[in-house]
Amino acid sequence: MIIGLIGFGKVSKNLINLIQSEDIAFITSFEGRSQKTIDSIKDADIQVLTTFEEVALNSDILISASSPKNALKVARDYGKLTKGIYLDLNNISPKTTFEISKHVEKFVDGAIIGKIDSTHPILYVCGKYCDELLFLDKYIDTRKISDNIGDVAILKLLRSTYTKTLSALLIEASELAEDYDLKDEFFEILSLTEGDEFKDKSLSRINNTLNSSKRKSEELEEIIDYFENNDLTMVKAALKKLNQ
Amino acid sequence: MIIGLIGFGKVSKNLINLIQSEDIAFITSFEGRSQKTIDSIKDADIQVLTTFEEVALNSDILISASSPKNALKVARDYGKLTKGIYLDLNNISPKTTFEISKHVEKFVDGAIIGKIDSTHPILYVCGKYCDELLFLDKYIDTRKISDNIGDVAILKLLRSTYTKTLSALLIEASELAEDYDLKDEFFEILSLTEGDEFKDKSLSRINNTLNSSKRKSEELEEIIDYFENNDLTMVKAALKKLNQ
Repeated sequence: MIIGLIGFGKVSKNLINLIQSEDIAFITSFEGRSQKTIDSIKDADIQVLTTFEEVALNSDILISASSPKNALKVARDYGKLTKGIYLDLNNISPKTTFEISKHVEKFVDGAIIGKIDSTHPILYVCGKYCDELLFLDKYIDTRKISDNIGDVAILKLLRSTYTKTLSALLIEASELAEDYDLKDEFFEILSLTEGDEFKDKSLSRINNTLNSSKRKSEELEEIIDYFENNDLTMVKAALKKLNQ
Repeated sequence: MIIGLIGFGKVSKNLINLIQSEDIAFITSFEGRSQKTIDSIKDADIQVLTTFEEVALNSDILISASSPKNALKVARDYGKLTKGIYLDLNNISPKTTFEISKHVEKFVDGAIIGKIDSTHPILYVCGKYCDELLFLDKYIDTRKISDNIGDVAILKLLRSTYTKTLSALLIEASELAEDYDLKDEFFEILSLTEGDEFKDKSLSRINNTLNSSKRKSEELEEIIDYFENNDLTMVKAALKKLNQ
């Protein structure tokens, strides 16, 4: 079996490390790649073809792991060509998955949750061809969500809805505690019920959010846009909080 | 040393169990108590005086653990009489603590966090006389917050601000996940980062909140009332969410 890789960042490199089998070969191309990426590919010691077109034509599974903004173009250019399964691992929106599915027949919407280089990353997949990827469970914990394209992307949005709104709540509550000079005590008392890691995790969430509040706001706007027919009282408040 | 108990529920019973020392005797009274409470007191095998006035007059530490709505009356009637420390363990608001401090000189504002009958409850105390209670650390983890009356009550409000707003967020996010038929997957994917207990804990929070949404709304209103000069974007959204 041949797995083709489009995009050669952390995800691709770690998949090569995780999926080690005599029956599986990885291929990719230097086409249009930076010197840094070419060096990475050389380090990985996998087969290199001249063009991504050849990669697509020779793959049983073609994996797109480049960037969300390239995802649709990659799908149109190469997903269309492949006879194999096309697995998109970019962090794309449900709308983009629906767009891709118009162009690519054997499309599987996937996401790796948990750090790809951690001990236990999980590969979530959906789409009517996703069963054909479940054998990957031998190498990486692989879980099917459903036969419906978009479900993995929606799941990521739901996750993001929770974590980003939680961050806004943590910002508000910790500001409040600080105003009463009880911030340390606030985190301590909550650790009793929320777990020992609560303080560090919460402070890291607060800092991450405040340090990239513009991007977080944009992501909340996308969430609100996508789920516009649902009640989003808390999410909208989180957006308001981040925009203050 | 003599510790007087006004109110004889779970808190008092468990304090007697936790604080076992030859140097400490507990006293209380049957005055105005129900037969059930009288039976409880008999079971505990502590000294019983005829009136709470006598209990107050004979205590080195007088503990009020009856109910939030009686707290102020108990303080006025008996806290005023005692020469000892007056420790209020009712779940009272900061405003009530300020009111009590007008009537009782040696007043300590306290709270037991974590279940009193669990392995590790913590007694938080504040007020300028609270140092005199720190010896209790031998029997129950006892932590001083500050010399300021009200700080323990404010800390409880801050904790409640967080947990109640979080519950509103969990309700919204899980409704959203359910609408997309991804509720189980939503809890699963978040457990990867939030911990194995995330699902059970969240579902229990959602159920508790929905089953007593009127009371939770009232508590959120009290929070909003107390912290009215602070930004409460998230808390106000939580109130709106619970009132839907």
